[in-house]
Amino acid sequence: MDPRVPSLELVEPVCAGERRAIARMLSRAEAAGPEAREALDLLYRRTGRAHVVGITGVPGSGKSTLVSKLVAALLESGRKAGIIAVDPSSPYSGGSILGDRIRMGEISSHPSVFVRSMATHGALGGLARGTLEAVDILDAAGYDMVIIETVGVGQDEVDVVRATHTTVVVSAPGLGDDIQAIKAGILEIADVHAVSKGDKPESDRTVSELKSMLGLGLPATGLRRAVPVIKTCSPRGEGVAELLAAIDAHRQYLVTSGEYEGRRQSIRERRMLKAAEQVLHDEFERHRQGRMADLLAELSGASISPHTAARRLLAHIGMEVTR
Amino acid sequence: MDPRVPSLELVEPVCAGERRAIARMLSRAEAAGPEAREALDLLYRRTGRAHVVGITGVPGSGKSTLVSKLVAALLESGRKAGIIAVDPSSPYSGGSILGDRIRMGEISSHPSVFVRSMATHGALGGLARGTLEAVDILDAAGYDMVIIETVGVGQDEVDVVRATHTTVVVSAPGLGDDIQAIKAGILEIADVHAVSKGDKPESDRTVSELKSMLGLGLPATGLRRAVPVIKTCSPRGEGVAELLAAIDAHRQYLVTSGEYEGRRQSIRERRMLKAAEQVLHDEFERHRQGRMADLLAELSGASISPHTAARRLLAHIGMEVTR
Repeated sequence: MDPRVPSLELVEPVCAGERRAIARMLSRAEAAGPEAREALDLLYRRTGRAHVVGITGVPGSGKSTLVSKLVAALLESGRKAGIIAVDPSSPYSGGSILGDRIRMGEISSHPSVFVRSMATHGALGGLARGTLEAVDILDAAGYDMVIIETVGVGQDEVDVVRATHTTVVVSAPGLGDDIQAIKAGILEIADVHAVSKGDKPESDRTVSELKSMLGLGLPATGLRRAVPVIKTCSPRGEGVAELLAAIDAHRQYLVTSGEYEGRRQSIRERRMLKAAEQVLHDEFERHRQGRMADLLAELSGASISPHTAARRLLAHIGMEVTR
Repeated sequence: MDPRVPSLELVEPVCAGERRAIARMLSRAEAAGPEAREALDLLYRRTGRAHVVGITGVPGSGKSTLVSKLVAALLESGRKAGIIAVDPSSPYSGGSILGDRIRMGEISSHPSVFVRSMATHGALGGLARGTLEAVDILDAAGYDMVIIETVGVGQDEVDVVRATHTTVVVSAPGLGDDIQAIKAGILEIADVHAVSKGDKPESDRTVSELKSMLGLGLPATGLRRAVPVIKTCSPRGEGVAELLAAIDAHRQYLVTSGEYEGRRQSIRERRMLKAAEQVLHDEFERHRQGRMADLLAELSGASISPHTAARRLLAHIGMEVTR
């Protein structure tokens, strides 16, 4: 395939599930060129079949191993799986992309599995967009479940996790109370809890701690269903089938309760707002030298507040703010 | 003071440093009423004196104790300190506001210290705005240093930390390699590193690990100065004077190198863009029933992509997007 083939010509091969076309489309989306935009818009209309699952947990929680076992279970049930691995945006984590691939090794070469690592280096706010467009591509390409694996820390990661249908939070036993506290920020977004390393004696305590925290939080957070806590031991394959069943049950719950369409709509709206923010940001950068010059001068003199400046920015761009 | 006194009448008392006026203005800002907006705009012109310092570290890193000792050192040098404590947005952390106040107890009643806890519950994106407006108020009220204490996790927290002049990252020894990896995401934003619990034997290893990580990261991150790593032991008061000296030296460096004005300008621009996003978001919500109805229908049918929807949203609002 000619590397200069227009993005639009990739749409049909992507929807037909051709791996090279998918890989190329993913790269085009990541590069975010205007030429890829039209193809992504066309692909978007072919989405909506995949179950999008976010799997999040701190480094060391064993989520990569769990994901690979989960995918194996998914394959056994006759389904195709797309995996998007998001790495923390740090210069110190340079090696982890390779690391993920190695750990995923056994399954990543399976014809019904597509693994993609997203580099976060220099993405600066584009990570959420890029990741969700990658989900669209894999969805359109016919993968039944698209799994996003993240460490769940940082602003983009939170945006990503909030854009999934089902969120699994992986906790490892014995990582200490401090980590539990950090994770408190993401505990409440879990639709399913997985406790990894179930062969460790402390795992039962982690399970019961999670259950009691969920019990406490239930009235406060207004949850309408009990959140399952599943103990797993990936090397032994224990709890993996149960985890997949819990993920499937959550989708079933969403559909039956009518929450599914509401969740999908709020994801679409959030993505639209994020995209609008990006346009705003781009316009600002583009007019730095031109019509934003006055605004920047006033800002640098601190003679106007950021809020007043925001209204002038929008006025500069032509937006009529009515209050 | 009449609780219904207009916000505008609070501006002068705030600038005169009257505690009750400051407390009231902080509450008005947090409530974000349109009436407070005008007062905040006026107060903003009186800002620019304070050194804004972000102190961040995972729960259990001992940063609250370190902050209280740092403030004591600041008082000794004849300076006034404002402290804004940002708590993680979790239903499980309900008790920590009180906790902060108790730990801060000794110093929070000092006439030259003002402590404010920001509740994150239900703030949903407003935390960064509210916190930075609280900084403006304390700056205008004449506090020489305004310290924002955060756990450094989550999207709003990152926004807050990026809006400070000097960022101190607190690491505790012996919290395990996993935590170090989580913190990797914030390691690179540190202007000064503090290692707490310096009486623990592992603290020397943490110091040398940080130094070697910084050594590795230096060329990659394009840092123009060596980032100091300071070992502290708050209960014994060890390293606290050194930490204050390092924070002061960083401000001096910013001013001498000319980076200070650039940093302040980029903070102003980011705050403006954030405020503009908020206006966009509010307009969208406000017109849900009216002129956004078509857009929402198209979105729910998935017949247009979030990106196309974003351009229509901006067009609906009247913004002329030229590309």
